[in-house]
Amino acid sequence: MNAVARVYVAVVGPSAASAEEERVASDVGRLLAGRGAIVVTGGLDGVMAAASRGAREAGGTTLGMLPGTDRTGANPWVDVAVPTGMGEARNALVVRTADGVIAVGGEYGTLSEIALALKLGRPVVGIGTWELSRAGSANADVGIARAPDADEAVRLLFERL
Amino acid sequence: MNAVARVYVAVVGPSAASAEEERVASDVGRLLAGRGAIVVTGGLDGVMAAASRGAREAGGTTLGMLPGTDRTGANPWVDVAVPTGMGEARNALVVRTADGVIAVGGEYGTLSEIALALKLGRPVVGIGTWELSRAGSANADVGIARAPDADEAVRLLFERL
Amino acid sequence: MNAVARVYVAVVGPSAASAEEERVASDVGRLLAGRGAIVVTGGLDGVMAAASRGAREAGGTTLGMLPGTDRTGANPWVDVAVPTGMGEARNALVVRTADGVIAVGGEYGTLSEIALALKLGRPVVGIGTWELSRAGSANADVGIARAPDADEAVRLLFERL
Amino acid sequence: MNAVARVYVAVVGPSAASAEEERVASDVGRLLAGRGAIVVTGGLDGVMAAASRGAREAGGTTLGMLPGTDRTGANPWVDVAVPTGMGEARNALVVRTADGVIAVGGEYGTLSEIALALKLGRPVVGIGTWELSRAGSANADVGIARAPDADEAVRLLFERL
Repeated sequence: MNAVARVYVAVVGPSAASAEEERVASDVGRLLAGRGAIVVTGGLDGVMAAASRGAREAGGTTLGMLPGTDRTGANPWVDVAVPTGMGEARNALVVRTADGVIAVGGEYGTLSEIALALKLGRPVVGIGTWELSRAGSANADVGIARAPDADEAVRLLFERL
Repeated sequence: MNAVARVYVAVVGPSAASAEEERVASDVGRLLAGRGAIVVTGGLDGVMAAASRGAREAGGTTLGMLPGTDRTGANPWVDVAVPTGMGEARNALVVRTADGVIAVGGEYGTLSEIALALKLGRPVVGIGTWELSRAGSANADVGIARAPDADEAVRLLFERL
Repeated sequence: MNAVARVYVAVVGPSAASAEEERVASDVGRLLAGRGAIVVTGGLDGVMAAASRGAREAGGTTLGMLPGTDRTGANPWVDVAVPTGMGEARNALVVRTADGVIAVGGEYGTLSEIALALKLGRPVVGIGTWELSRAGSANADVGIARAPDADEAVRLLFERL
Repeated sequence: MNAVARVYVAVVGPSAASAEEERVASDVGRLLAGRGAIVVTGGLDGVMAAASRGAREAGGTTLGMLPGTDRTGANPWVDVAVPTGMGEARNALVVRTADGVIAVGGEYGTLSEIALALKLGRPVVGIGTWELSRAGSANADVGIARAPDADEAVRLLFERL
């Protein structure tokens, strides 16, 4: 199947992740692979590695877009590595490559990917990730769809693709 | 004075800004120029144009880093325009070029610049901008210093540089 | 096999290629796939499409790094598409992703990829491509190894990797 | 005068330049500043520093687009520094920012900038730089206009802008 016909989903989250976040990310990767999606990550550790591992173990394809200039930084479950050499500017490429984004947990780098995805109109589903509200608003921003677990996150994302 | 010796401050905010946001951004630009800072923006309208105008009118230097491939998209108060041709990936360049960031209002693009700045360890001061909290935390994230007006924002930022 | 363990080779050349250039590029793609290399291209037509087709038909993996923001521009033999949205700046990413480069024919875009590869110290083999000489030198620059056909090009490149 | 109304010219050449190349680059910078152009360079030493120095001494404005993440790498004659953090991919940004390019001497990095400029349709004038010919052609490629000295180079470039 050619590249255009496939669905690409980015799984974003911290490189220093909790065991629970890694378990969830791995489930997300596995479920995405089960639906035929290419799993795109930043290629490093933590959530990125767990999602890639889950996808790989389910027979899926994984793409890792690294901040550095050398693919030796990639985790072992990345099938195709792109060492962008662009530092955090690669976050925009991760998001642009994907049709939708699932965020698991998250530090500031993850927040930038969520924001870039929303700016580009990509659907974003979050599991235990940032809550955002605009200045002066009593309500949370609804850009991020919320899911309690991997199953629901993947279901919600595909509904929005 | 050479480039290394100067302070660079990014002023980020929406291209579709309210009159009040533009007034504040213009004040921020003017105050930054008064302190000798180069004002860096995304080069477009709204907050970006107002900050550049304020800085220019106070005799400052303004740098506009555009998403498109052509500098005709720059607002008229940009002194030096860089048409990156990188789309939203230019947000990372805006932030990297700056020693600190002042956010005025903000949509998702602004949120991405705030997040990238925090990721890179740049101080961020916000006026009427996003409120962030991490999953499961009852408290707002304190990455963004809050200011009620332009004077206080510039004062807080320079304290942190 | 993980991404780090594999060899990545970029095949660069014009999107408006001659039938002979496409035949050669297809042979190059096939031979690279036969050696287990991931074939990296700019993802468009001509030499890029032919090399991807050759690799795909030999069971290989192909990565296409597109200048635009949308992967619908990818040729049908790209397995994994990265729409960089960076225009010609993506040429640097094509080259950085690869351990070595084979150029078939070539216009100015190809020349930029050859030059970036030589700057980064990647081996470059050319088939019917640019000849370069430095100012004041009677001799051609020897940065590009010359090959008469696909077999020899692939052999020469692997010798240098 | 705003950014859009000005002419931007990139001066490209090696960081390890001969005394003669630096003298010529300085003259080019001075003449460009005399014509009101903003001088764009890669911000480092050699030809880049000399062109910036010449422009600065003639009262011009200089923009340096650095490969690294930190503007402390800029030469002292850069007025506005953009630390792109993109490595050699910044060459495409140098060229895109400029309306035309003058190459003085040159290694592979310079060749990549010449090629990218020709690809983007920017006029290129060379002083003692690369000679290019296409495969199978007995004649040199005429993409680069040749000049013997700084005066003629600047005159030829403005004729083509």
